[in-house]
Amino acid sequence: MDFVVIGGDAAGMSAASRAKRNMADMNVTVLERNHDVSFSACGMPYNIAVPEKPIEDLVVRQAEVFRSKQGINLLTGHEVTKIDLAEKTVCGTTDQGTAFTFPYDKLLIATGGTPVMPDFTGTDLPGVFSLKILDNGRKMKAWLNERPVKKVVIIGTGYIGLEMCESLRERGIEVDLVKPGKALVSWTAPELSEAVQQEVESRGARIHLCNGVQKIESNGAGLSVVCQENSLDADMVLVAIGIRPNSDFAAAAGLELSVKNAISVDRHLCTSDPNIYSAGDCADAYHLVTGEKTWIPLALVANRGGWTAADNVCGIPKEMDGVAGTAVFKIFDLEMARTGLTMAEAKAAGFDPVDVVIKSRSRAHAHPGSVPIHVYMIGDKKSGRLLGAQMLGKEGAAHRINAAAVALHTQMTVETFSQTDLSYAPPFGPVWDPLLTAANQLLKKM
Amino acid sequence: MDFVVIGGDAAGMSAASRAKRNMADMNVTVLERNHDVSFSACGMPYNIAVPEKPIEDLVVRQAEVFRSKQGINLLTGHEVTKIDLAEKTVCGTTDQGTAFTFPYDKLLIATGGTPVMPDFTGTDLPGVFSLKILDNGRKMKAWLNERPVKKVVIIGTGYIGLEMCESLRERGIEVDLVKPGKALVSWTAPELSEAVQQEVESRGARIHLCNGVQKIESNGAGLSVVCQENSLDADMVLVAIGIRPNSDFAAAAGLELSVKNAISVDRHLCTSDPNIYSAGDCADAYHLVTGEKTWIPLALVANRGGWTAADNVCGIPKEMDGVAGTAVFKIFDLEMARTGLTMAEAKAAGFDPVDVVIKSRSRAHAHPGSVPIHVYMIGDKKSGRLLGAQMLGKEGAAHRINAAAVALHTQMTVETFSQTDLSYAPPFGPVWDPLLTAANQLLKKM
Repeated sequence: MDFVVIGGDAAGMSAASRAKRNMADMNVTVLERNHDVSFSACGMPYNIAVPEKPIEDLVVRQAEVFRSKQGINLLTGHEVTKIDLAEKTVCGTTDQGTAFTFPYDKLLIATGGTPVMPDFTGTDLPGVFSLKILDNGRKMKAWLNERPVKKVVIIGTGYIGLEMCESLRERGIEVDLVKPGKALVSWTAPELSEAVQQEVESRGARIHLCNGVQKIESNGAGLSVVCQENSLDADMVLVAIGIRPNSDFAAAAGLELSVKNAISVDRHLCTSDPNIYSAGDCADAYHLVTGEKTWIPLALVANRGGWTAADNVCGIPKEMDGVAGTAVFKIFDLEMARTGLTMAEAKAAGFDPVDVVIKSRSRAHAHPGSVPIHVYMIGDKKSGRLLGAQMLGKEGAAHRINAAAVALHTQMTVETFSQTDLSYAPPFGPVWDPLLTAANQLLKKM
Repeated sequence: MDFVVIGGDAAGMSAASRAKRNMADMNVTVLERNHDVSFSACGMPYNIAVPEKPIEDLVVRQAEVFRSKQGINLLTGHEVTKIDLAEKTVCGTTDQGTAFTFPYDKLLIATGGTPVMPDFTGTDLPGVFSLKILDNGRKMKAWLNERPVKKVVIIGTGYIGLEMCESLRERGIEVDLVKPGKALVSWTAPELSEAVQQEVESRGARIHLCNGVQKIESNGAGLSVVCQENSLDADMVLVAIGIRPNSDFAAAAGLELSVKNAISVDRHLCTSDPNIYSAGDCADAYHLVTGEKTWIPLALVANRGGWTAADNVCGIPKEMDGVAGTAVFKIFDLEMARTGLTMAEAKAAGFDPVDVVIKSRSRAHAHPGSVPIHVYMIGDKKSGRLLGAQMLGKEGAAHRINAAAVALHTQMTVETFSQTDLSYAPPFGPVWDPLLTAANQLLKKM
């Protein structure tokens, strides 16, 4: 059987490896348009923070290992441009200009996502970067290492924007963060967003909210980011306003798309064509809480999707449980974590949501080193269900959120969650874990 | 209504406070035989580590606050010795020698536990301590502060024994740990127990396994702990071989006991007498995994039990979900966490258990500061259910365990757990959380 995978990152290489483990005699071909496969995209901000560290440290497994040890026909520099569903072939061109065609019995589209570029002018100027694939990181790092970069403007304050803010401050570079909205972290409660803002500003970064960018210009010495309220000089600009799924040639081939133009897949990761699967940042998923289609591009979801698709391709029926959008990021000394729905998402999904913000501590009463932990929690008045939770603190937020994530997998009520038997010892938390305190407070409103 | 509570620690004061919040006009009387209420027993090892820190720092809420702010009739120095079920009274004597009798409509027994004293001689010698109530800690700390204590022998290697080992090493005191069994941590996999042993020994404590204590003797200058294999000199001895429930007068009154002589309660925390409830270390509970009665004395369980009993006393019907035995302790730089059944418990409960030990990392590939994390996980071959998990590492174990604890609340299978949407970012873990890697490995055996 010929199993062709388009895309050699998280979902694609997970699928290719798993397919070969499942069925050693399967012909597995991976077509990757770039020359980097299997790298830790999420690690780029931390790598870029350290000038002397090679960006190649982020490669988890060398291409050669996939070829020689795992027997995967891994072809880099191969850009697929067309899928023919009737003929069951994929066509494209190598970066050497050679055309290629591969027949498939089963195909996996794992083409990932591409940074969204805003429609103002100047995003193509030298010194303007986005950050998604390893080559983005390589070029940005070269720019930073080869020039006396003193000031950077970051457009957007999502995970990447904030992580790169920390990374650049580590290098002693001045940072201006710009976004049109009025909250630094728009999806959380004001108390939590303000605590993040305080942390970022205390580390010397400048935040410009309610400030839309109009254009980026070259100003001779460097770049100028022209905003509604002001103009900001920069030696480099990072555009980090989100990504979109790479689904163009899937759509052109006639495959069904869904939320945000992600490739529509069922719980087996199968697209609208029974021989074609899709996984990773290009594919949609079912949300655990709403049961509806969603698109949440995250690394673990891509890995899980790759495995599930590969199992189904190999005739081992597997369904992928939905996604909860569990995520965490570090911003200087703070950990911020989330799972499930935001208030806006809960309302949009037809729930009757109520929320609570509580402030607890990371360690027990009288234990030294305790710091505040904020918990924001949302429940549904109608069903009593837990809908989402968010946590912020200098310690103890990143892993705690997983208890709420598991609860979301089982449609647990806030009342049941408030009774869960969580761990306690003075160095690690209060007797009532901050999540339990939040659940108990939320219960009073439900 | 007269609500009488026997015992003024975690379960008792939680219940008294909640009852007054539920029904402000209720007469709530708490009878506590000691003079300390509402203190953090678990914080004692950390307090004792610092000579100049008053032990009273561990008092969470002063007795006076319960009296004046909450209107609770809190009577310390009142030891109950007898319950008369027919008359609905409790009798006893104050530490001033005055006899007392209180009538009750509803009674809560929250008498906690008492350290088990071994049957060899010498445990009553000056300088031999156990550690359960605040007064134990106060006396031990006075002993340590007032004498040139250079060497301590700790008999037992449970949570208290290990935490006190760290505490005493912090004070520069030599420590010998003695136990009859062959593993330092008997309930976990050998790999994890050995890693704890390495950590303890690397901090200069000496561990004596397979070594039963025969007696403690006074040797003029200090104490001598005479073991099967050797004799150990000491300026102080800590006996920490476990606790037993304080259920003697409950039994004498005719209340039903169960596992380990704990007071038998139903899911409403009601004993075999419909007017008497019990919660905390003296009461039994239902195990979440087996559904059977169990006795696991832990702080959160006591607090949850106090609330549940108070609600039922106030006519608000509440059931307490079972306990999973989720616990964590710190031993020097290591975090060790557990939830659910051990292998021995799983076999005894009639499951067909299989287990796996994996070694993962606390942070992502290429992220600085990553340390090993061990996960031990147990599943049931028949039902596919997750039965228990244990984790050990220098970071990232204490809170991660809660994800598995929540899974146990819902009888989740290992397969479903392996698909849960847990958090990921390079500073906090690998893409596949160590718990997910363990679940995926365990699945192969199931």
